[in-house]
Amino acid sequence: MALKAKVLYDFHSENPGEISITENELVTLFSEEELDGWLEGENGRGEAGLFPASYVEILKDHITSNTNNNGVSSRKTKALPPTQTSFTSTEAGSVGSGGGSFQTSQGSDDDWDDDWDDASPATDAPQGLGSSPPLYAVTTSLPARRGSSRQHHQQQQAKSSATVGRNLNRFSTFVKSGGEAFLLGEAAAFVKDVDRICVVMGESGPEWQEDPYPFTCTIDDPIRQTKFKGMKSYMSYGLTPTHTNVQVNRRYKHFDWLYARLVERFPVISVPRLPEKQATGRFEEDFISKRRKGLIWWMNHMSSHPVLARCDVFQHFLTCGADEKAWKLGKRKAERDDLVGANFFLTISPPAVPLDLQDVESKVEGFKTFTKRMDENIVVVNTTINEFARKQITGFKKEYQKVGQSFKLLAQAFELDQQIYSVGLNGAISYTGETYEAIGEYFAEQPRQDLDPISDLLDLYRGHLDNFPDIVHVQKGALTKVKDCPKQDGDLHDRCNIISCATLAEIQHFHRTRVRDFRSQMQHHLRQQIGFFQKITAKLEDALHRYDDDQ
Amino acid sequence: MALKAKVLYDFHSENPGEISITENELVTLFSEEELDGWLEGENGRGEAGLFPASYVEILKDHITSNTNNNGVSSRKTKALPPTQTSFTSTEAGSVGSGGGSFQTSQGSDDDWDDDWDDASPATDAPQGLGSSPPLYAVTTSLPARRGSSRQHHQQQQAKSSATVGRNLNRFSTFVKSGGEAFLLGEAAAFVKDVDRICVVMGESGPEWQEDPYPFTCTIDDPIRQTKFKGMKSYMSYGLTPTHTNVQVNRRYKHFDWLYARLVERFPVISVPRLPEKQATGRFEEDFISKRRKGLIWWMNHMSSHPVLARCDVFQHFLTCGADEKAWKLGKRKAERDDLVGANFFLTISPPAVPLDLQDVESKVEGFKTFTKRMDENIVVVNTTINEFARKQITGFKKEYQKVGQSFKLLAQAFELDQQIYSVGLNGAISYTGETYEAIGEYFAEQPRQDLDPISDLLDLYRGHLDNFPDIVHVQKGALTKVKDCPKQDGDLHDRCNIISCATLAEIQHFHRTRVRDFRSQMQHHLRQQIGFFQKITAKLEDALHRYDDDQ
Repeated sequence: MALKAKVLYDFHSENPGEISITENELVTLFSEEELDGWLEGENGRGEAGLFPASYVEILKDHITSNTNNNGVSSRKTKALPPTQTSFTSTEAGSVGSGGGSFQTSQGSDDDWDDDWDDASPATDAPQGLGSSPPLYAVTTSLPARRGSSRQHHQQQQAKSSATVGRNLNRFSTFVKSGGEAFLLGEAAAFVKDVDRICVVMGESGPEWQEDPYPFTCTIDDPIRQTKFKGMKSYMSYGLTPTHTNVQVNRRYKHFDWLYARLVERFPVISVPRLPEKQATGRFEEDFISKRRKGLIWWMNHMSSHPVLARCDVFQHFLTCGADEKAWKLGKRKAERDDLVGANFFLTISPPAVPLDLQDVESKVEGFKTFTKRMDENIVVVNTTINEFARKQITGFKKEYQKVGQSFKLLAQAFELDQQIYSVGLNGAISYTGETYEAIGEYFAEQPRQDLDPISDLLDLYRGHLDNFPDIVHVQKGALTKVKDCPKQDGDLHDRCNIISCATLAEIQHFHRTRVRDFRSQMQHHLRQQIGFFQKITAKLEDALHRYDDDQ
Repeated sequence: MALKAKVLYDFHSENPGEISITENELVTLFSEEELDGWLEGENGRGEAGLFPASYVEILKDHITSNTNNNGVSSRKTKALPPTQTSFTSTEAGSVGSGGGSFQTSQGSDDDWDDDWDDASPATDAPQGLGSSPPLYAVTTSLPARRGSSRQHHQQQQAKSSATVGRNLNRFSTFVKSGGEAFLLGEAAAFVKDVDRICVVMGESGPEWQEDPYPFTCTIDDPIRQTKFKGMKSYMSYGLTPTHTNVQVNRRYKHFDWLYARLVERFPVISVPRLPEKQATGRFEEDFISKRRKGLIWWMNHMSSHPVLARCDVFQHFLTCGADEKAWKLGKRKAERDDLVGANFFLTISPPAVPLDLQDVESKVEGFKTFTKRMDENIVVVNTTINEFARKQITGFKKEYQKVGQSFKLLAQAFELDQQIYSVGLNGAISYTGETYEAIGEYFAEQPRQDLDPISDLLDLYRGHLDNFPDIVHVQKGALTKVKDCPKQDGDLHDRCNIISCATLAEIQHFHRTRVRDFRSQMQHHLRQQIGFFQKITAKLEDALHRYDDDQ
């Protein structure tokens, strides 16, 4: 029997694969299972495709008893069109009403040990805990904008089960993020002192208060582990944070889960995306090493962020040992955290003196221009250095090796001369040939040392930059709202100040880490290049000495 | 009235453009003028084409009085077939008989100051002075064997007026060189002590006795000079030999003349060809500098050869000043030198103990194999390093500059961030970009320093190697003659020993200078490369320090 759903709101398809549906229409579902918030089915005009799960109400009775085709859904008690409220989560079992009730996803703990790599994480996705209005869980993932690697990344995301799914950014990020709700004074939650996030006034403007207990975290080479008597295998990473110095073991899916928690938790903080999930290289080892490198970058970024580094869920991730119970407890707590989205702003303590909003606007506008240019230019840099790496690995190597081989040919011809005084020269020329061959190898090996790390950094920053349009959007939304407000509203202004402080603090943090990261990476690159050319020089000097031996 | 000639010996055409002629046949000449020893005409069968001038006798009477169609030539008194005697010079005006009379070419001094570059040097070509048998003037030029540059060289030779004309090596080099005549005891000339050339027994076999007064010679940048009130211009090279330290001025045509003298004078000594006569580059300056470099190489080779460096004509060339009379005197003396060709061997004083001819044969055979391989392999080396140079000038440069430009783009994006703490980094990244652009330039400039000199050396040695098949041929011809001789002939054996000593001494000299030249060139190359990479390293270190400034 066909599974049916009733359409709650009009939806106009905008992309290939989507279909338009009309309010009150009955659509046929191909499956009850959502994919990243979408359902697949057929509309009244016989068109098949995807539509947002939240726009329809699955007719459960239709399945079980087939009695109530037009019955009001038990899941949707409030039929406001989505443009007037927030995008409501349609998670099975959740009651996304204006009320405060919340039901955990079924089996969210039980399937923790399943291989998330293939399973849908939707059932594990967190829900805003009962505050009004309900929140859409995911706010920041933007679609890929250009370039094959980004496209690839997008495909990865589509394929993967990351909680941050496809961009469903049909509604203003300002709304989705909870920024609007907070600004309108609709956010309400109890904030413990420990959760309070201070923004202080630094030399260059608002800044996150520094973490008084900074730490870093190492990531060991992953170890392949098996379960179900070897039926399934997965890679386990040993993480050792410096502040506990105790190693914990985590899988990629744990990183993925953490990422989703952080993204929902911090609307105006940029959480760079994780390294790609699937292998891009042909060799698994390459991929594992690449992913590990990516996770190290990511972890460094996290642990050096004053807000992210200190938050509960991250600390739970870094410090909870093998005790299954403790882990599940922390996990559930994180998923039920009510300081997400709009409520996040409640945790912000701004500096005593409020910001000049005009000044904020110009700074944010400048930052927008900056990120756009940076994003464009790092694409050029990345393309160029990848091409340069390719040239070194192929062309440069080949040229040096051809020269090396030709010198060896010369030595071979000279060896036909049996004169005793010729022996030294022949050996020296032959050695020079080997030297050139070795230099060819050096050129081929070098990009891995000094170009790939830059490329990795650029990738990290592209993921980073992808987050900022939304962050900027939230701040600009708040500013616009304040400007549009007919009467001077002190509370509105204060709340806009809080959003602005958080945004500027995050921008400031971005700049500081950017300067730190690029300085350190450029230094690393140049030191490596210097070492590389010194190695070549030493090799050539060695060859030169061969000509002295029998002078 | 048709000009006729009587055919003295059968000649069978072997190449297109040639015609066969039969002994005693009368042929019609199209012109009395020879071209490199060939005449053009029509045979009895009505075929028109070229045949060797020495195979016929021009019927002078037929031209002047038309009375004696079958008269015996006044120029050919001895009608031995050419395979049994030497190829007789048919220079107009010369009486190439067994007697001692000799007439100088008409106007040989008068046209000295003409621009040889366009005039035929044939009238200036020297003649063996009256010894029996008459000698063919040119012995060593081989045709180009491969490669476009060599082909180009050949074309140059064909176009140029160099005394060494087209290869007409129809007759054994052994015969042409005078080797056969000497071996058969037909050479006879008075050898002054000062002309005596000693071959001594060295560690590795016979060697030219070292020059007790070694010297070198510098060549200044050429100066453009004009004559005929500026109607004609030519380049004048200032040469300063170290043993006189007095500068003399010579033109390319003087080098050309000297080259021709040396080639006829020393049958088993390799005189490398001169650098190319015509511009190969598009820019005259490039060409002038290239030719000068080539002349320097050539001069170094000459002045370090124990025999060539000391000979009269070379000394005259190096030391005669601006006194026109003295120059002409020396010039005429050189052109009338009778110690050329076969008589050259009369000047050789071999070591006391004669060589084992079996041993000589195996050594010469080994050398033949060696030169063949060396010739083949230096072609590969030359092609490879020229390609490598091209890659550095285009590809390598481009790659480094593209990276440099992309770093500068990154800096430009970063400059949009107005943070004060970002300024230092931006400057450093921009400087790194400039550094990469500079490194690109370094790569483009480097081949001129360390690859071009190798290429020049290889070119010199290719010209050198081209001479050796003939030299080897002379020696092998002598050996064969001795072997073929039915009875043991002491004198024949002695004379073969002299030829062998000279050949082995020249081979020995070749090896010694080869080892010296290649050692020194490879050292130069490696030192340049080391300096090059050190320069890059220093530039990168400079860039690296920029990142410290505002730490």
